[in-house]
Amino acid sequence: MRTVEWDYEHNQVRMIDQRLLPGELRVVSYDDYHQVADAIRAMVVRGAPAIGATAAFGLALAAQNSTAADIIALRADLRQASEVLHEARPTAVNLDWALQRVLGGKMEGEYSPDELRAAVLVEAQHIADEDVEINMRMARNGAALIDDGDTVIHHCNTGALATVDWGTALGVIRMAHEQGKRLRVLVDETRPRLQGARLTAWELEQYGIPYDIISDGAAGYFLRSGQAQKVLFGGDRMAANGDLANKIGTYMLALAAYDNDVPAYAVVPTSTIDLSLAHGGLIPIEERDAREVLNLRMGGKSVVPKDASARNPAFDVTPHRLLTAIITEKGVIYPPFRRSLRKTLKG
Amino acid sequence: MRTVEWDYEHNQVRMIDQRLLPGELRVVSYDDYHQVADAIRAMVVRGAPAIGATAAFGLALAAQNSTAADIIALRADLRQASEVLHEARPTAVNLDWALQRVLGGKMEGEYSPDELRAAVLVEAQHIADEDVEINMRMARNGAALIDDGDTVIHHCNTGALATVDWGTALGVIRMAHEQGKRLRVLVDETRPRLQGARLTAWELEQYGIPYDIISDGAAGYFLRSGQAQKVLFGGDRMAANGDLANKIGTYMLALAAYDNDVPAYAVVPTSTIDLSLAHGGLIPIEERDAREVLNLRMGGKSVVPKDASARNPAFDVTPHRLLTAIITEKGVIYPPFRRSLRKTLKG
Repeated sequence: MRTVEWDYEHNQVRMIDQRLLPGELRVVSYDDYHQVADAIRAMVVRGAPAIGATAAFGLALAAQNSTAADIIALRADLRQASEVLHEARPTAVNLDWALQRVLGGKMEGEYSPDELRAAVLVEAQHIADEDVEINMRMARNGAALIDDGDTVIHHCNTGALATVDWGTALGVIRMAHEQGKRLRVLVDETRPRLQGARLTAWELEQYGIPYDIISDGAAGYFLRSGQAQKVLFGGDRMAANGDLANKIGTYMLALAAYDNDVPAYAVVPTSTIDLSLAHGGLIPIEERDAREVLNLRMGGKSVVPKDASARNPAFDVTPHRLLTAIITEKGVIYPPFRRSLRKTLKG
Repeated sequence: MRTVEWDYEHNQVRMIDQRLLPGELRVVSYDDYHQVADAIRAMVVRGAPAIGATAAFGLALAAQNSTAADIIALRADLRQASEVLHEARPTAVNLDWALQRVLGGKMEGEYSPDELRAAVLVEAQHIADEDVEINMRMARNGAALIDDGDTVIHHCNTGALATVDWGTALGVIRMAHEQGKRLRVLVDETRPRLQGARLTAWELEQYGIPYDIISDGAAGYFLRSGQAQKVLFGGDRMAANGDLANKIGTYMLALAAYDNDVPAYAVVPTSTIDLSLAHGGLIPIEERDAREVLNLRMGGKSVVPKDASARNPAFDVTPHRLLTAIITEKGVIYPPFRRSLRKTLKG
């Protein structure tokens, strides 16, 4: 099954609960958009492209469940749902992009309420289907940059689980592997939620790609000792100049790649690029619950002192100067990024 | 009590088992130097200066337990013990430094076996006592560089627990706090063994210094957003040019400090400086058991896939160009480090 999908039999949104992987593969279903917003917030589903598709299906639920008898009331309900879903996570722009795209022309124009309900679901389904296509295209574009024998450092999870299917940065690795290139992946465990150690390692096992999990702080050692030839990561929002908000730790990884002349590639669909923001300093950064940092246990006991406090920013911004290129479904984009990104998106 | 000390009542080495902190403060005693070597290897005791003093007391045990009837046989036993202790951990030079210093002139010269036994313990005790003095001097030298109101990022544990007492980098923070400067510490949790989250947080609570634990990958976020004014860490071995082997993750932290013009200080006693190595590429880097990376559990279940593999380098090398200054007991040393280190150490 896909990471997130519409269940046409029960008219529900269905998704893999990623918090339980790799120990348990549980599928959860929601029939109310508030549940969907909560699931995004709690990271039942995560990864910018997957969040986008999930939010779109959330709107489809809102349309389906709305008891509005006329089109004006239905549109008001959709606007309300859109606001609730928007609030779920602030950094990934794909969420807003998907909401915009589903509602798009549909907030005006001639629709009966049932026509609008149907149209919202059709559009959400399009977004999900397109995500898979886009990822395959990105993967082919990116795989051309991977050499036989490469060891690749990868941050967070950007695989099938971070998207509707196939993946972004991990999709590139998977495609290179399917093309017969021999690869090894150094998997950043990606504290605090360990998406690398939990999800990326699990996906790589499914694909039969050899890997080693490493502490996030160890990437610099492998880069400096010449044991890694490429660095790949996804993204949650890219500004017009190429600055990239991505999972916390990406900035330090990109610095270490740059310091050792190892190419660092951001693999992002164009839906992740937000031309309305001039630079990365304008991207809102979500700070999550301190307990995500503090909840580690060893031998059944808490690792940290009883009253310990923590800070937990979920993302950081990697300045564009540290990126070698940006891999999108429309091609590989090189510096100067402000010009090349605009050209790719607008023309 | 000190982190490690000689128990004159029972003629044993006594130390805090740091693997159990902060949940439990257990003191363990050893009466055989093989146990001491095992304790160093298993990280019952860790931190370069503490390892040095521990190894010295290990030699004192070897001398005490040797049944050698003449001085030649006793010296052979000490040489043997020195080799076993040396093997316990390869990166920290303080271990070899302490072994050298204890044996020093004592492998030649006129001693009766019992005189030599006594002399070895006296020298080990000197090393331990001096460590505390040296740390206090370093702390005063370093505290002068800390400003009232600073937020300091700190890596690993470099406090009383990493030394015989008082600490190196954390000793600087403690001294600045005792001088009345208002500080806040961002504590790198320091995967995989979480010395920051476990030990540094615990020590900071004892000293009454406010802190927040952060994921190692988050340091770059705080530096780039102007939320940290200093970066401090200790060291396990410094080459003649100032390149520094320290706990894995230090290199990426130093890169992030440098990229944001935030001063990064290495706080190391001169016993950590190894002028015999021209640069950091010559420092042996210990790779530890993969299980240290893989053994995390959440909700009682293993976080990683069942057959996951990992790499676990325990240290990395920070190139000297990323260090603003080196704080030692003999003063604060500035670039060019090759010249200034030699001058400081040789006279």
